[in-house]
Amino acid sequence: MTATRYDVLTVGNAIVDIIARAEEDFLVKENITKAAMNLIDAERAEHLYSVMGPAIEASGGSASNTAAGVASLGGQAAYFGKVADDHLGGIFTHDIRAIGVNFDTKPLDGTPPTARSMIFVTPDGERTMNTYLGACVELGPEDIDADVVASSKVTYFEGYLWDPPRAKDAIRLAAKIAHENDRQVAITLSDSFCVDRYRVEFLDLMRSGTVDIIFANDAEIKSLYQTVDLETALNALKNDVGLAVVTQGENGSIVVAPEGRVVVDAHPIERLEDTTGAGDLYASGFLFGLTQGRSMEDCAKIGGLAAAEVIEHIGPRPQVSLKDLLAQSGI
Amino acid sequence: MTATRYDVLTVGNAIVDIIARAEEDFLVKENITKAAMNLIDAERAEHLYSVMGPAIEASGGSASNTAAGVASLGGQAAYFGKVADDHLGGIFTHDIRAIGVNFDTKPLDGTPPTARSMIFVTPDGERTMNTYLGACVELGPEDIDADVVASSKVTYFEGYLWDPPRAKDAIRLAAKIAHENDRQVAITLSDSFCVDRYRVEFLDLMRSGTVDIIFANDAEIKSLYQTVDLETALNALKNDVGLAVVTQGENGSIVVAPEGRVVVDAHPIERLEDTTGAGDLYASGFLFGLTQGRSMEDCAKIGGLAAAEVIEHIGPRPQVSLKDLLAQSGI
Repeated sequence: MTATRYDVLTVGNAIVDIIARAEEDFLVKENITKAAMNLIDAERAEHLYSVMGPAIEASGGSASNTAAGVASLGGQAAYFGKVADDHLGGIFTHDIRAIGVNFDTKPLDGTPPTARSMIFVTPDGERTMNTYLGACVELGPEDIDADVVASSKVTYFEGYLWDPPRAKDAIRLAAKIAHENDRQVAITLSDSFCVDRYRVEFLDLMRSGTVDIIFANDAEIKSLYQTVDLETALNALKNDVGLAVVTQGENGSIVVAPEGRVVVDAHPIERLEDTTGAGDLYASGFLFGLTQGRSMEDCAKIGGLAAAEVIEHIGPRPQVSLKDLLAQSGI
Repeated sequence: MTATRYDVLTVGNAIVDIIARAEEDFLVKENITKAAMNLIDAERAEHLYSVMGPAIEASGGSASNTAAGVASLGGQAAYFGKVADDHLGGIFTHDIRAIGVNFDTKPLDGTPPTARSMIFVTPDGERTMNTYLGACVELGPEDIDADVVASSKVTYFEGYLWDPPRAKDAIRLAAKIAHENDRQVAITLSDSFCVDRYRVEFLDLMRSGTVDIIFANDAEIKSLYQTVDLETALNALKNDVGLAVVTQGENGSIVVAPEGRVVVDAHPIERLEDTTGAGDLYASGFLFGLTQGRSMEDCAKIGGLAAAEVIEHIGPRPQVSLKDLLAQSGI
C-alpha cells in the first residue's frame, strides 16, 4: 500500500462564487429554481450579472469547499479541478492553496474561462446557484494524478461532476486506483435536481461498489429513491451502500452504518446568514473525523460544527480556523 | 444654477479589495504599518498575495464606498474614478452601478490594470491596507464631467487622490466648477500617513476655500496640526474650514460648525468584524443627512448608523439597505 500523504482528496468543479443578496421576487421574475444549482450558459450568465445586485467574489465549488474545510480542521487535503489560466483561475488557485490544500491540476490554456456561479442569498439565508461551468468541461482522466489518489485515505467527489462531459471518466479512473490501493471512495449527491438527472448512474455507482460512502441531504435522498418518505429512503440506502450520511439542515444528521443508525442534532448557531457551503463543510468535518478514526457520532458532530461556522457568514468557506473551533468545542 | 441631479458626487481611487484575516505577527513579519493605507508597487503586490491567506474580493475604494452608502440610504449619487478595461474593472463597475450610483468614467484601455488593495483584518477587527494604484494613476482633469459636478449638491473627494500624479488637477477643476455653481466641496483626509505626505497642500485647500467641509478621524486631524491634543486641533479647525466632522471610532463623532460643536455617541454594534469602510460610510450618512437638510446632530447620527452596519461584517460596503435601517432607527 502506498504511504498515506492525504487524509482526503476531493474532485469537483472548480468555481469562483459571485454572491449577492436578493429578494424572493427576484428569483421568480428571473425564472430561477430556488435553492437549486441551476446550470447556465454564457449568455444567461451575462444577463443574470447585469440584473444582479452588488456582489462579492469568493472561491467556491462544492468539493473544493470540502477540501478547504478538511485543511482548516488540520487534516491533509488535496484537490483536483479545472480552472482556466485567467484572473478568476488565479483567485481560485490562490485561495485553495492558501488554506493549505494541495492543488496542482493543470489549468486550461485559453477558453472557456474559469467557471463562476452567481449565488443569490434570499432573506431566509437560502442560497440559489446559477453556474456557468466554463473550463470545468475540460476535466478528464488525464487530470487524475494516480499517486495522489493512491496516497489519500478517502477520495471524495461531487455528483455535479456528471454534468461536464468527461469528468465521470476521471472519477471512474480515480475510484479504480483508490480501490486497488485499499482506499475508500465517497460521493456527495450534490443537489436533488442533479440526482434527478443522473439517478440511474448514481445508484449504479453505489450498487456496483464504485463508491463506499455517500453524503446526501434529505431532498437528495428522497429524489434518489423517488419517495416522499425519508424512512423508506434510509432503509433502501442501507442495502445499497456501506456508509450513508444524510444531512437535514437545522434538524441535524443521520448516519446509516452497518452497525446501525446514529442520529445527531445540528450544532447551534447564532444567526443564519447564508447556507452556501453547509453540506460541503459538513462533509469536510465528517471525513476529517473518519480519517482520524473518530466514532460515527463524533464524525457527525464535527460535520455539524464545520457547517455551523460557514452558514453564519456570507461565503462558502470557513473564515476562522476550524481546528481551533474543534479544540474549543470539546467534541 | 444647474438643476440638481445628484445629492453627492464622489471622486476617488477606484479599487477592488482583496480581504483576508491575518494575525498581528504577520503584519510585523511583512513590515506592514498596521491600520494604515500602505502604497505598494506591482512586485510587492505579487509578494503579499503569495503570502496572503484565503481571501474574498469586494469592490472598495474610499470615495466609491461613500457613494455606495449614499445610494443605499436612498440618495442620488455619482462617482468618478478610473478602472482599466479588465476583469477587476468589470467587477468594480458592476458593483457600483448595481447599488445605484451613476458611474461613467471612461475605463483605461490597456495597462496598468485596475487597482487592488490587499486588506488584512486582524483579530481586533482593524484593517490594514496595501494598495497597488494601477489604473488610478491615469485619472485626470479630462475625467471630470462638468455637468455632473454642476448638478451635484456636494462634490466629495479623497485625500488619497494626492498620491496619483494628475488626480489633484482633476479635483481643483471639479472644485472650481462646483463653486461656480454654488455647490459645496468636501474632502476626507483619508489616512494619517496621507496627511503627513500632503499636510501643506491639505491646509491650503482648506484655507483657500477650495473645500468647504472636511471629514477626518482623530489621528488624521492630530497629524494635520501636528499635535497630540485633540482640543488644539479642533480649535484650529474652526478657523480653517467652514464645517469639520471628526470621527472617533467607538467614541462617536464631533461636528465643528460655525454655530458650535455637536458631539454624538457611536451607534451601538453587536460585534466588530472589520473596520474597513467605517469612515467612508460615516461620511455617506453625514452627507446624505446634510443634503436632505437634516440637523447637524441627525447628520452625525446617520453617519454613525451607516458606519455601524459596515463594521459588523467583512467588506467595505453595506450588505443591507441603509434606507431601511435608517427608517427603522427613528433618527
